[in-house]
Amino acid sequence: MNYGIIIKVIGYVLLVESVLLLPSFFIGLYTGEGDAAAFGITILLTLVIGFFLSRMKKGDSIISIREGLSIVSLSWIFVSLFGALPLYLTKSTSTYINALFEIVSGFTTTGATVISDVEGLTHGILFWRSFTHWVGGMGILVFSLALLPALGVGGFQLYKYESPGPVAGKIAPKLKNTAKILYTIYLGITILEVILLRIGGMSIFDSLVYTFGTVGTGGFATKNLSVGAYNSTYIHLIIAIFMTISGVNFSNYYLLLKGKVKDFLRDEEFKLYIAILVIAIVAMALNLYATTYDNLGTAFRDSYFQAASIMTTTGYSTVDFNLWSAFNKLILLVLMVIGGSAGSTAGGMKVIRILILFKMVKREVMKIFHPRAVVPIKVGGKIIPNETVSSIHSFTALYMIIFIVSTILISLEGIDIESAISSVAATLSNIGPGLNFVGPASNFGGFSQISIFYFTILMLLGRLELYTIFALIVPKKWSNEY
Amino acid sequence: MNYGIIIKVIGYVLLVESVLLLPSFFIGLYTGEGDAAAFGITILLTLVIGFFLSRMKKGDSIISIREGLSIVSLSWIFVSLFGALPLYLTKSTSTYINALFEIVSGFTTTGATVISDVEGLTHGILFWRSFTHWVGGMGILVFSLALLPALGVGGFQLYKYESPGPVAGKIAPKLKNTAKILYTIYLGITILEVILLRIGGMSIFDSLVYTFGTVGTGGFATKNLSVGAYNSTYIHLIIAIFMTISGVNFSNYYLLLKGKVKDFLRDEEFKLYIAILVIAIVAMALNLYATTYDNLGTAFRDSYFQAASIMTTTGYSTVDFNLWSAFNKLILLVLMVIGGSAGSTAGGMKVIRILILFKMVKREVMKIFHPRAVVPIKVGGKIIPNETVSSIHSFTALYMIIFIVSTILISLEGIDIESAISSVAATLSNIGPGLNFVGPASNFGGFSQISIFYFTILMLLGRLELYTIFALIVPKKWSNEY
Repeated sequence: MNYGIIIKVIGYVLLVESVLLLPSFFIGLYTGEGDAAAFGITILLTLVIGFFLSRMKKGDSIISIREGLSIVSLSWIFVSLFGALPLYLTKSTSTYINALFEIVSGFTTTGATVISDVEGLTHGILFWRSFTHWVGGMGILVFSLALLPALGVGGFQLYKYESPGPVAGKIAPKLKNTAKILYTIYLGITILEVILLRIGGMSIFDSLVYTFGTVGTGGFATKNLSVGAYNSTYIHLIIAIFMTISGVNFSNYYLLLKGKVKDFLRDEEFKLYIAILVIAIVAMALNLYATTYDNLGTAFRDSYFQAASIMTTTGYSTVDFNLWSAFNKLILLVLMVIGGSAGSTAGGMKVIRILILFKMVKREVMKIFHPRAVVPIKVGGKIIPNETVSSIHSFTALYMIIFIVSTILISLEGIDIESAISSVAATLSNIGPGLNFVGPASNFGGFSQISIFYFTILMLLGRLELYTIFALIVPKKWSNEY
Repeated sequence: MNYGIIIKVIGYVLLVESVLLLPSFFIGLYTGEGDAAAFGITILLTLVIGFFLSRMKKGDSIISIREGLSIVSLSWIFVSLFGALPLYLTKSTSTYINALFEIVSGFTTTGATVISDVEGLTHGILFWRSFTHWVGGMGILVFSLALLPALGVGGFQLYKYESPGPVAGKIAPKLKNTAKILYTIYLGITILEVILLRIGGMSIFDSLVYTFGTVGTGGFATKNLSVGAYNSTYIHLIIAIFMTISGVNFSNYYLLLKGKVKDFLRDEEFKLYIAILVIAIVAMALNLYATTYDNLGTAFRDSYFQAASIMTTTGYSTVDFNLWSAFNKLILLVLMVIGGSAGSTAGGMKVIRILILFKMVKREVMKIFHPRAVVPIKVGGKIIPNETVSSIHSFTALYMIIFIVSTILISLEGIDIESAISSVAATLSNIGPGLNFVGPASNFGGFSQISIFYFTILMLLGRLELYTIFALIVPKKWSNEY
């Protein structure tokens, strides 16, 4: 391993983090709620340590796939280790493990919390938690739309077809160019939502926090009742629409910017994403209307909000969906696992993988009629190489294995099956709330420290598409077997 | 479609069924419990209709894969439609839908029941229900080890490598030869278990019924408490051991018969099957001992029985495992989905598919280190063609899709999530009991008629490896798209 370059990059990342901590520091100074010192100390630490690490000799500048993935994993881990400090130092969480869970939940845009009374937090801390969603969302866009396709591992070759910017050229300039386009789109969506929420009567502080949580598909809120604290259909709908927008592959917006509206609407992943969402909303709304709701409009509004929130893995809630019927809860559970589109800030298995699984199944059924036919899998008219299809299959299998083993382990906490399944789904798919024990009216604070740490790892695994973390932990010995 | 040959084969199958009904008819005559007439009428009907159908002109004797699979599906459906008559005519079940569920549960070796008091059934009916397990188990062996590999669809090419008998030659003689070997082994195991149960003090009638349920991995019992009614560790262990034996690929016993003990023990699917079973037993026993049991030996005995019963998809119980911890119930739920070995009478996804999924995942992780390496998947030293691997993936994806959609639909019955998940697993994997609403102390009689009919279809889907039923229901139109 080329440790020099890995350490050097982490140094730069910490320097960036010290800058990202500044707004929270200034908010702390302005409000005088006593959290400024904690931010000051953390800024100093990241600045000094970042500076020294970044001076490291980088050695060879060519990096292997494993090194590339290790840089990503370790960057995410190190910004979290330092980013957790303000929460710990201000005693916003009782332990450092809890602070780490909270901030990993932030950077991975999960939105799961161990804090039962978020209204008791200082404004600086509230801002920092939610700002990590926004920063994490940005990081994920570059990671999934620029870096992974370039490395070509774990079935992410697929993204290549859709990644914006020039196709030819060396990695570094292409990466930079792609990142710039993505950030512009991301910033544009952010500004638009802040303005629209302000129009709805939200304070500037809350508008920022909920926008960070929405476009990053995170879910941290300023109120214990999440978005439900705002009794305004306008605000519910604005947030629901922006969650939906944030669950779309961002390279599609590049098509839109270039005026290719038809290409945008014809995108197969986009169509399936919308189709799944619409089916879920209609089914849930009708079930709500048939069982508890008097008003079909309200049933549709709440179904839309919850379906969009869960499918895009944001995790905001306007009602306690844990009280809904088993039918609706199962639909939400399935949306949790599917997640949003690839190349968005959303988590989960991703719609594109589901699309390819469907196509594989259909091809297999066709073989009953045409046993000798060789039919390639196509998405958007382009043939997906068999190797990529097989990578996608392995990903879904690995996802399921991690899901099942984790659920069994977590059940040792003595919770019910529903809570065990949904708490694992909520963290591995980077959603936030689950059902029962971790329902929207509850939080992860009831788990033991070891489980909270385990969930922290699950959030990172899910966010970094499993293989990125595996590059770090799989023993070298394994690789020699081949 | 060559309807002539399809109808002709179904005719022959009904003729065979009329013979299979004879023992139950004679038991009815002997006991005088009033069920003989019902069997007599059914025998007459199958005989007459079977005779006329079998006189049908068969047309071309070359059949397509689709026709082959349709014959299998329709045979299973027709023997069930007629086989349900004795239960309906004797009013053993309240409706014909229930009778059909019960007998499909028999032929598919599921063992799920809608009858709450089986001790109230006549001996003729008890014998017929369980005898269908034994006959169904036989049918499955020939279907999965002789017919499917010959047709080469749905990833079943895989079985070819392990199917006993000569490899070369035409389908018909090979099929006949393979079937003969399998039936001999099947009969041998049956006789051995009957003798061992008799030695344990079981009546000859019960020995037969429980043996049918064990070697067919069905699970129908003569007592409401299932095997738990026998307070004998010897009987528990004999049945547990024979369930374990029945979950092994039967072509492995062919190796054993030929003295190839080493090959038998080296079989990768066999090793994984035993490994999963042992891990599950140890984890569950320790959990039982740590929570409720005083005696570690009893904890191991009950864990072994339940793990073997669920993994081989038999469904017998000695205790009400629905009262066990969430940890143990989740392990049982996973065993439900995995199921036994391919080429056994057990249902589920099958261990060989899990094995190949594991190997796929490992290969993908390795690509982080060796991005350009082309590594084939091997089982038992033989390379599995990519097409077969891809078929297996499609199968697991289709299985999951059916599982998830069915769970959501069944939840409309107003039951809890655990009951919905486990009732679908119990029928799709051909197990029998599930959890909560369909736990071992309960039955499927509480569902509406439409759900009971839906479960009936799930049992057939699961038993006939999904694609066989799909060959029947997928519209011809689809096939023209390619």
